[in-house]
Amino acid sequence: MPRETEFNQPLGGNDMPRFGGGGTMMRLPAQDTAEGLDACFVGIPMDIGASNRAGTRHGPRAIRAESCMMRPYNMATGAAPFAKMQVADIGDVAINTFDLKKTVDIITAAYDDILAHDVVPLTLGGDHTLTYPILRAVARKHGPVALVHVDAHADINDEMFGEKIAHGTPFRRAFDDGLLQNDKVFQIGLRGTGYAPDDFDWGRRQGWTVIEAEECWHKSLAPLMEEIRAKIGDAPCYLTYDIDSLDPSIAPGTGTMEIGGLTTIQALEIVRGCKGLNLVGGDLVEVSPQYDTSGATAMIGANLLYEMLCVLPKVWT
Amino acid sequence: MPRETEFNQPLGGNDMPRFGGGGTMMRLPAQDTAEGLDACFVGIPMDIGASNRAGTRHGPRAIRAESCMMRPYNMATGAAPFAKMQVADIGDVAINTFDLKKTVDIITAAYDDILAHDVVPLTLGGDHTLTYPILRAVARKHGPVALVHVDAHADINDEMFGEKIAHGTPFRRAFDDGLLQNDKVFQIGLRGTGYAPDDFDWGRRQGWTVIEAEECWHKSLAPLMEEIRAKIGDAPCYLTYDIDSLDPSIAPGTGTMEIGGLTTIQALEIVRGCKGLNLVGGDLVEVSPQYDTSGATAMIGANLLYEMLCVLPKVWT
Amino acid sequence: MPRETEFNQPLGGNDMPRFGGGGTMMRLPAQDTAEGLDACFVGIPMDIGASNRAGTRHGPRAIRAESCMMRPYNMATGAAPFAKMQVADIGDVAINTFDLKKTVDIITAAYDDILAHDVVPLTLGGDHTLTYPILRAVARKHGPVALVHVDAHADINDEMFGEKIAHGTPFRRAFDDGLLQNDKVFQIGLRGTGYAPDDFDWGRRQGWTVIEAEECWHKSLAPLMEEIRAKIGDAPCYLTYDIDSLDPSIAPGTGTMEIGGLTTIQALEIVRGCKGLNLVGGDLVEVSPQYDTSGATAMIGANLLYEMLCVLPKVWT
Amino acid sequence: MPRETEFNQPLGGNDMPRFGGGGTMMRLPAQDTAEGLDACFVGIPMDIGASNRAGTRHGPRAIRAESCMMRPYNMATGAAPFAKMQVADIGDVAINTFDLKKTVDIITAAYDDILAHDVVPLTLGGDHTLTYPILRAVARKHGPVALVHVDAHADINDEMFGEKIAHGTPFRRAFDDGLLQNDKVFQIGLRGTGYAPDDFDWGRRQGWTVIEAEECWHKSLAPLMEEIRAKIGDAPCYLTYDIDSLDPSIAPGTGTMEIGGLTTIQALEIVRGCKGLNLVGGDLVEVSPQYDTSGATAMIGANLLYEMLCVLPKVWT
Amino acid sequence: MPRETEFNQPLGGNDMPRFGGGGTMMRLPAQDTAEGLDACFVGIPMDIGASNRAGTRHGPRAIRAESCMMRPYNMATGAAPFAKMQVADIGDVAINTFDLKKTVDIITAAYDDILAHDVVPLTLGGDHTLTYPILRAVARKHGPVALVHVDAHADINDEMFGEKIAHGTPFRRAFDDGLLQNDKVFQIGLRGTGYAPDDFDWGRRQGWTVIEAEECWHKSLAPLMEEIRAKIGDAPCYLTYDIDSLDPSIAPGTGTMEIGGLTTIQALEIVRGCKGLNLVGGDLVEVSPQYDTSGATAMIGANLLYEMLCVLPKVWT
Amino acid sequence: MPRETEFNQPLGGNDMPRFGGGGTMMRLPAQDTAEGLDACFVGIPMDIGASNRAGTRHGPRAIRAESCMMRPYNMATGAAPFAKMQVADIGDVAINTFDLKKTVDIITAAYDDILAHDVVPLTLGGDHTLTYPILRAVARKHGPVALVHVDAHADINDEMFGEKIAHGTPFRRAFDDGLLQNDKVFQIGLRGTGYAPDDFDWGRRQGWTVIEAEECWHKSLAPLMEEIRAKIGDAPCYLTYDIDSLDPSIAPGTGTMEIGGLTTIQALEIVRGCKGLNLVGGDLVEVSPQYDTSGATAMIGANLLYEMLCVLPKVWT
Repeated sequence: MPRETEFNQPLGGNDMPRFGGGGTMMRLPAQDTAEGLDACFVGIPMDIGASNRAGTRHGPRAIRAESCMMRPYNMATGAAPFAKMQVADIGDVAINTFDLKKTVDIITAAYDDILAHDVVPLTLGGDHTLTYPILRAVARKHGPVALVHVDAHADINDEMFGEKIAHGTPFRRAFDDGLLQNDKVFQIGLRGTGYAPDDFDWGRRQGWTVIEAEECWHKSLAPLMEEIRAKIGDAPCYLTYDIDSLDPSIAPGTGTMEIGGLTTIQALEIVRGCKGLNLVGGDLVEVSPQYDTSGATAMIGANLLYEMLCVLPKVWT
Repeated sequence: MPRETEFNQPLGGNDMPRFGGGGTMMRLPAQDTAEGLDACFVGIPMDIGASNRAGTRHGPRAIRAESCMMRPYNMATGAAPFAKMQVADIGDVAINTFDLKKTVDIITAAYDDILAHDVVPLTLGGDHTLTYPILRAVARKHGPVALVHVDAHADINDEMFGEKIAHGTPFRRAFDDGLLQNDKVFQIGLRGTGYAPDDFDWGRRQGWTVIEAEECWHKSLAPLMEEIRAKIGDAPCYLTYDIDSLDPSIAPGTGTMEIGGLTTIQALEIVRGCKGLNLVGGDLVEVSPQYDTSGATAMIGANLLYEMLCVLPKVWT
Repeated sequence: MPRETEFNQPLGGNDMPRFGGGGTMMRLPAQDTAEGLDACFVGIPMDIGASNRAGTRHGPRAIRAESCMMRPYNMATGAAPFAKMQVADIGDVAINTFDLKKTVDIITAAYDDILAHDVVPLTLGGDHTLTYPILRAVARKHGPVALVHVDAHADINDEMFGEKIAHGTPFRRAFDDGLLQNDKVFQIGLRGTGYAPDDFDWGRRQGWTVIEAEECWHKSLAPLMEEIRAKIGDAPCYLTYDIDSLDPSIAPGTGTMEIGGLTTIQALEIVRGCKGLNLVGGDLVEVSPQYDTSGATAMIGANLLYEMLCVLPKVWT
Repeated sequence: MPRETEFNQPLGGNDMPRFGGGGTMMRLPAQDTAEGLDACFVGIPMDIGASNRAGTRHGPRAIRAESCMMRPYNMATGAAPFAKMQVADIGDVAINTFDLKKTVDIITAAYDDILAHDVVPLTLGGDHTLTYPILRAVARKHGPVALVHVDAHADINDEMFGEKIAHGTPFRRAFDDGLLQNDKVFQIGLRGTGYAPDDFDWGRRQGWTVIEAEECWHKSLAPLMEEIRAKIGDAPCYLTYDIDSLDPSIAPGTGTMEIGGLTTIQALEIVRGCKGLNLVGGDLVEVSPQYDTSGATAMIGANLLYEMLCVLPKVWT
Repeated sequence: MPRETEFNQPLGGNDMPRFGGGGTMMRLPAQDTAEGLDACFVGIPMDIGASNRAGTRHGPRAIRAESCMMRPYNMATGAAPFAKMQVADIGDVAINTFDLKKTVDIITAAYDDILAHDVVPLTLGGDHTLTYPILRAVARKHGPVALVHVDAHADINDEMFGEKIAHGTPFRRAFDDGLLQNDKVFQIGLRGTGYAPDDFDWGRRQGWTVIEAEECWHKSLAPLMEEIRAKIGDAPCYLTYDIDSLDPSIAPGTGTMEIGGLTTIQALEIVRGCKGLNLVGGDLVEVSPQYDTSGATAMIGANLLYEMLCVLPKVWT
Repeated sequence: MPRETEFNQPLGGNDMPRFGGGGTMMRLPAQDTAEGLDACFVGIPMDIGASNRAGTRHGPRAIRAESCMMRPYNMATGAAPFAKMQVADIGDVAINTFDLKKTVDIITAAYDDILAHDVVPLTLGGDHTLTYPILRAVARKHGPVALVHVDAHADINDEMFGEKIAHGTPFRRAFDDGLLQNDKVFQIGLRGTGYAPDDFDWGRRQGWTVIEAEECWHKSLAPLMEEIRAKIGDAPCYLTYDIDSLDPSIAPGTGTMEIGGLTTIQALEIVRGCKGLNLVGGDLVEVSPQYDTSGATAMIGANLLYEMLCVLPKVWT
């Protein structure tokens, strides 16, 4: 009975018009810590790791605003996450917007605190730099993780402008720190221009699987996800979703667009295809509201975060 | 000879630049009533039935403005509607924007007047509430109708915020009033979040056919329309097209976006697939220009209304 | 010492970046009722009383979002409201967006509840219809009130489209119900086109003072406010500020623009000029975010609400 | 009694919501010619004379759209133009958008036809090139005219890119053709950068009066208009109003912005200050809707055209 | 070694942030003529040939701005154009914006100068009129050419508004002048409304191949390109890409949108499918930045021009 | 004879349409260093010092784009800067966008290089952090400087979020380093909310003169500038202009808006009022194009930089 439960419920449209009510994710109750939660939404309002367009600092606020219309039940998959789990919005990490390196440590500390509870954090970004410090905390708790990484870019640069920390380096740093199970890393949707073939091949050389966008064109990704599930098995798994994996026509509200990208249909197939994985965390990054005139990019972000919630193990047990 | 005929013709680009001329649908002549017409365009500028974003009150004006580039002949289907029918723009229904319930009655009265003539009304919306009062008038003339309903939402709530009349209830009300042939009702494109499975299953229990968006992914809808045509046969049929059936990347100018939606290619397949049906009316609803920065959503609306015109029985007889 | 006090404080920029944190007014703490408060911010997300452009339903959310940069101390006036009063954001009134008449009664009931506490409500609108039901509750507590009404329009129509309740009628209804002290009603900024001279003169005939925009051009309004304060004295006074009183170049995010309007400098002079009045309530209405591409209109709204807070009697006692 | 008269009336808000109804200027009746009219609104949808930003081709449509809220009576001046004159919208001139020189002749021919009737044309532009061909027709009927020219630019280049016809040359051409009474030419609001002092001084050498923007700063223009009226006397007079005379903060929807411009208050003082002149025509040019995100620029244009109507001689006789 | 070469290289992100640096195409070096170049980017800032929306005069500037993030190496195809060719941005053609007919001759003269060098010009448009004068110069050098023409429209009108030169006539003019090898002309993506079947059939009657958009729906265009390559063989070939061939959801920043269009995936298949052809020139036209709020349309244009560069014969020899 | 001179000239509109040509400031020639120049334009594309809205990283590009319409001669002041000085655009400083502290040192080093030549640098920002590192280089060459600082904010925080370097601290740092002549520091336009009176009074205690916005309302600032000139005398002087000193209605394209601000008329009075000062450098900061939908904010920035050029000592000697 999803509507009458002891768990937190999103504020419904028959209790408060959709355009009113508080500004939390899905109009869920807010709380300060992850205590007592099975899953939580967390914001990281940052963009100082971005190399091109600015603005993802406003991403969490926009995603929350555009989540206001979402209802609790997943019509397509039958998931009823709020009937099975205690979920809340635990607010934003107070990053230091004037120092990227300090911010990385602030984030890890914040996730160490969150993961002191038995909770799955779902993060509203923010630029992609943030996945690295989250993975440090996640690996500290769960050990090295399998990774499903959906993106237009590999984000495995060793340096950008001479710096080790930037939104194009998180997975190189995660590799360096031994945070990943390299035979269980999947990068989906990579494409565009680069400096050299190694921009994608470096990962392959570490044992990662790279599925370029061209391999995704004109077809369903459900079969791909079946393969990925088989390879990951029950390893602890982290899902990082960069909104720029989508085609710019679909998600213009981001900083580094590349043409020929995925559709939201494929995005849904990917996230829904994670059902059965042992997901221990997830994020949705690189939403930049200034370029999102209709709000659709943030709205997609909100939906994909909800779909992540719908495939958490506890929903199906 | 479609260019020299006794019928009204859209004002051509060689007579007046596309960015000039009057503000009617397709730059057709205006007239005050439906007298003497085979088909007519009617606007219903309303949004007071909307539950989320506002703005469909400006929909008819925007659809007309973006129709200025349309030429008379359908290059793909060969339809030449202005060579076969007398068509005009009969303006807007003067709704009462301060009272939704009175507005519903105003609309029915207006369509009773229109349908006093032997005309097929094609309506520029406006929020989806308007289909209910139109169907009351249509059923009064033609009896209960078959329904092709393209939408992201089922719109079969019994109540919203305790109210019987709202843009999420029109087909429940039409059912209650016996306006539909329940074995000939088709809902295409439904998706997203809901409150419970019954949000879609209620219709199924009444004998309606629900085709969820997921069933439409990655394929042509021409075969589906062939099935639908077979089932509807020559019953009088009404086509109601909610622009939010389209993916938000395609139609951001609307109030309640849901990801993973239809494409304009599929929309064209649906409307063109109605050729052969005994269409007695149609509408295009939920265009909200404030969120339509490029005008594309309104332009799509204008094209789909034109495509409806192109499949009216008189065009092909 | 405004920074260390027993009162609620806005979340500061050194504790959380301005682009993070919760979505309340000025990032103040939220609470469900007005209990224990000296002043409160309340949202009324409605636009169904609007006659032209839609969108003020999103006004409260936008005003709160754009209030995120505001700090506690008023550099110009020396007001330190959070050092003198307990203030919180008590959220939105759950209006019925499908029925304007019911909404009016919902609002009055909500303000009866609020005013059961000894608190000054400052309202984030929402279309101007809302001032009428608020005044009903205010007058029930304080008796008929003096009124400072800043607006491009008189809003004293007896009917609009045959209706008694709409955003062009609230002060006629307030007059009819005896909610006003007619010798202490001041309408500032009226201008534009109308139907007849009586659009402004009706109020004058009831004893009201009408200051047309033309009388405000090219000068400070501080002297005017001095006169108004003298005439109102210590009568309980309500301040209703329609953002369309401002020139459209300053506040484009609204529904019924009129050229030749006030400046924000004059707006500040008006609100700051209310210092010394016995203010028992105030509102800021008609912010329509869809037309406010830069966010400036909502930001002005947020600032004017803060300035209202800064002139409440308790700040200066 | 302005509401019941034999003259055309704008469609009122109690008959049709402001967001509905036809797309004519002020929702007036349309007619094809100027026959029987005292004044008429005419559109010239052109921008091929523009040297910088494009888009004024869409100006007439936008001005009409934003005129929908205007009511018949001028609250500030007491003018009731529709009680004294027969006014209609006679549509657009069918310019040749592929040939600027032919377009100039098309416009003159169109205004010869209009002026065959005893009517005052008020033109919705369109780039400023159009004033030259209008003046040719006007002078053919009325002889050389006095000119009130409000603009950021003098528009007196002899050539632009080697061409005699462009939006920076109309008043040089008018001078060359002897269409002006040179001692009665007033250019108001000129400013910005130029090539040389002669950009403004050329006109002075022909006897024209140039009032640079700097002379207008911080003050009312009512005294200036009093002087201008005295100098023009009862000569036939044409009023040409370039929207870029206004500050870009007020009228961003135009092609060649210059900072430090006029306010709408000053614009109203100028147009209202033409009361008493023998106005035989007027235009409002250079509205470019693409840059007018809120619609305010077009709305200002609509209001200034209405104010021109309000000072026509027949309104006050 | 693509990074250290004697050829010009795009300015890299590790040398200058992507949001800094000069405004040339791909941040390449600029030079005044085509001397010493294998390929060059040229801008033609014009829109006076446009029949509907304005604004393509700003296309070249926008395409260059949005090219700032592009890196030298093509990850999908392995092309490394800057390792094989000397490429630069040679700036804009100084068209006469006040005279379309003169502009056509200016363009031909400019391309005669460019083609005096052994260079492949890739043109940033600008409205589609420009392809005609370019083809005149191209045919003067290479003889009649094969043509790959991607577009929503056939652009083969004999006249528009009585004019021979306009953006709807370039291929009729090219035919008239004998600039094309008629058995090697391919028009891809045509669709929408027209005046008569001949709008598409005229070309067919000249021996051209017309592939309507409907033939492209739901499938890869790689097979089509294979056929086209076989038919064109080693004839000198020109590629003209109208951005409105894409669906409006993908490329809203253009002037004459038609629904049901191509995707960027198909666009990439088309341009990449030109590898092996003897390309002697190419253009990307009809980008209109005013309607391109996110910059995505210009960004697509920049990418397609880069992809054209990647299939030039010298890259693969 | 400003048009024929040995000095660089902006590319004129009769040589290349305004919407074409290169992307430098005022379409001036570009060069890599300041060698041989009397004045130069330099861009610093940064926003990582910003505390609220992002986006000033794109400021220099936008200012240059919107400078395309500017002509060489100042109609109001008679300045002909390009007849008296050699001026060029020397491009952008290659900042490290991932490390604010390193960026500060990069900027100082870049300006040390620039100031090795006898040139006055005029800087296109970028967030206000940049003025501190510029002042370090300027003071190294000229000794401590007088300062004219136009801004809504004092920017004298000792720390922000615990950091010494941010866009709210540059003048505190400049004070700490002894870069200023404290009796010759003028802060104009300060206003809004703060934490405590000391936000403005700290500067006063160091001997600085603070002119709050309220002191500027309703009047010309020419008299103020006369006083300032008298006090500064012939000391080397730096002019730093934060675009947010302007009212948000005028300059919405910025990150930290405060209502009740200056007008462009007052801005022109301030910059023109610097004529006679010994200006050794200037900057225009905080232009954030994402919020500048019409381009007007960047256009104002371009004009104010040009006006700075027009008051440099060499123009008048």
